[in-house]
Amino acid sequence: MAAAGEPGLQGQEEAEAAVVVVGSCMTDLVSLTSRLPRTGETIHGHKFFIGFGGKGANQCVQAARLGAKTSMVCKVGKDSFGNDYIENLKQNDISTEFAYQTKDAATGTASIIVNNEGQNIIVIVAGANLLLNSEDLQKASSAISRAKVMICQLEVTPAASLEALTMAHSHGVKTLFNPAPALANLDPRFYTVSNVFCCNESEAEILTGLAVGSPEEAGKAALTLRDRGCRLVIVTLGADGCVMLAQTDSSPKHIPTERVTAVDTTGAGDSFVGALAFYLAHYPNLPLEDMLRRANAIAAVSVQAAGTQTSYPYRKDLPSHLF
Amino acid sequence: MAAAGEPGLQGQEEAEAAVVVVGSCMTDLVSLTSRLPRTGETIHGHKFFIGFGGKGANQCVQAARLGAKTSMVCKVGKDSFGNDYIENLKQNDISTEFAYQTKDAATGTASIIVNNEGQNIIVIVAGANLLLNSEDLQKASSAISRAKVMICQLEVTPAASLEALTMAHSHGVKTLFNPAPALANLDPRFYTVSNVFCCNESEAEILTGLAVGSPEEAGKAALTLRDRGCRLVIVTLGADGCVMLAQTDSSPKHIPTERVTAVDTTGAGDSFVGALAFYLAHYPNLPLEDMLRRANAIAAVSVQAAGTQTSYPYRKDLPSHLF
Repeated sequence: MAAAGEPGLQGQEEAEAAVVVVGSCMTDLVSLTSRLPRTGETIHGHKFFIGFGGKGANQCVQAARLGAKTSMVCKVGKDSFGNDYIENLKQNDISTEFAYQTKDAATGTASIIVNNEGQNIIVIVAGANLLLNSEDLQKASSAISRAKVMICQLEVTPAASLEALTMAHSHGVKTLFNPAPALANLDPRFYTVSNVFCCNESEAEILTGLAVGSPEEAGKAALTLRDRGCRLVIVTLGADGCVMLAQTDSSPKHIPTERVTAVDTTGAGDSFVGALAFYLAHYPNLPLEDMLRRANAIAAVSVQAAGTQTSYPYRKDLPSHLF
Repeated sequence: MAAAGEPGLQGQEEAEAAVVVVGSCMTDLVSLTSRLPRTGETIHGHKFFIGFGGKGANQCVQAARLGAKTSMVCKVGKDSFGNDYIENLKQNDISTEFAYQTKDAATGTASIIVNNEGQNIIVIVAGANLLLNSEDLQKASSAISRAKVMICQLEVTPAASLEALTMAHSHGVKTLFNPAPALANLDPRFYTVSNVFCCNESEAEILTGLAVGSPEEAGKAALTLRDRGCRLVIVTLGADGCVMLAQTDSSPKHIPTERVTAVDTTGAGDSFVGALAFYLAHYPNLPLEDMLRRANAIAAVSVQAAGTQTSYPYRKDLPSHLF
């Protein structure tokens, strides 16, 4: 018998994921070098490591580590990176019932070259992620329709994301859409099927054509995005926290965050989105500003450790006032 | 009972490698993109694949596919890339008795980004290759000292390469040294312990400071290199074949090669070196010019298929006049 306040562990809920993510899994192939290579050049780096990434899986892992019962709807290759990724999801207590494997493409990869100053070059080959299709979503429809929150991004095909959001929305599931990487000409239907539309500064710039360099400018972008049909717009601002704008708000609100010394900000936005999904699913009555303050705090913990998923905190390591 | 002319299969020879390579294994992580990324940029590629590379293993694989009994002295990580690499060596009938695995570094990787025009960016992290040490070489000393030919390159530490060459040379084993990637200030002892010193145009330029853009210029570079103590210098020239200069020659000789339509020249130099080692070990009485003509022909086959080791021909697929 689960203790009171432990989410997702009582009775019927045990079989159902509160947070379903329809999105990407990527194997990060990271080389650390003293400088970045130029065209035609072969250079030597000093360290190589493999990490687990992809915006979809990152967000799912963060939600799961906070205690959400989660399920990942995704597609990886029938290859060793794919096998390792599914094992990683299981290690994070994420349901892999709808984690498909295909022989038709390799597991998605992100080849990342990082120099000593933290500048990088990234080449993403989405591979199997782009083969997640309508049939796969139909198979997962009972899980999607019974979730409390469903998250999508844009690292699978826009068609798959839109279909998943539409499916969830029509069943009254709260949809959290993170339009990343941003598309300048995003299908307008994405706005109307998103209960929460959560993007960062540069994504807000691409989507609106407005410069977003401050909380004020983020607020203006949020007004533009809200006018396109979202119930709630959140624009994340890194060390400046985030700006929120609900349909019922007269003006945008800035939710600042505590200053911390960042070691590695990679994947911090995904930590924020995963944490927000956790609160939306398990603390639906918490005021939204409190959810965002807590999601800010969790993302701030993640930037104080190296790596992407490796930097995401577990519930047991966080202060109790966040729960 | 092996047929006459089948090398390395009779009696005592069965247990001993005729060609021993002391060198590198690298996992190639290849992303194909429409253009190359700039600093700070994230771009999307259309295909990702993993290949087996590293100059040492490439040369060993080519020698083995021509029928040489081979052994690879190398170090990979105790990780899945390392396990896969050792399996690859076995699949190529290469002895892995001295293919060491370490927990102290990852298997060497080459992250390769190639655009539609064939331009590339390569980041090599040598990892476990740099941990191949004196103790490892001592363990392999009986194999090295009983080989007919030993090959080294510069993708393990120069100290390990020099020790291996010195060990082989002192036992009367024919040493074939491929100074790649080239070092401007190569230890002069490398020249005196190399029976055959085989480099390409750009390596010859780095080693001599002379421009090498034609067979004539390659000949001048070869004269400079021979003066440093090598018995035989070979400078490979891609589609122009190679130039040779023995200690007894009055002038360099150009050995041209048949023109072919190249699909992918990656690893062609290693195909040449591996083929040369095969002829030196198994056809020691063949005139050197004939060996080079045949090694040119085998490298020319390799450039007509995609990939590195995947493009290396097997004996069974080559015309009989090469054997």
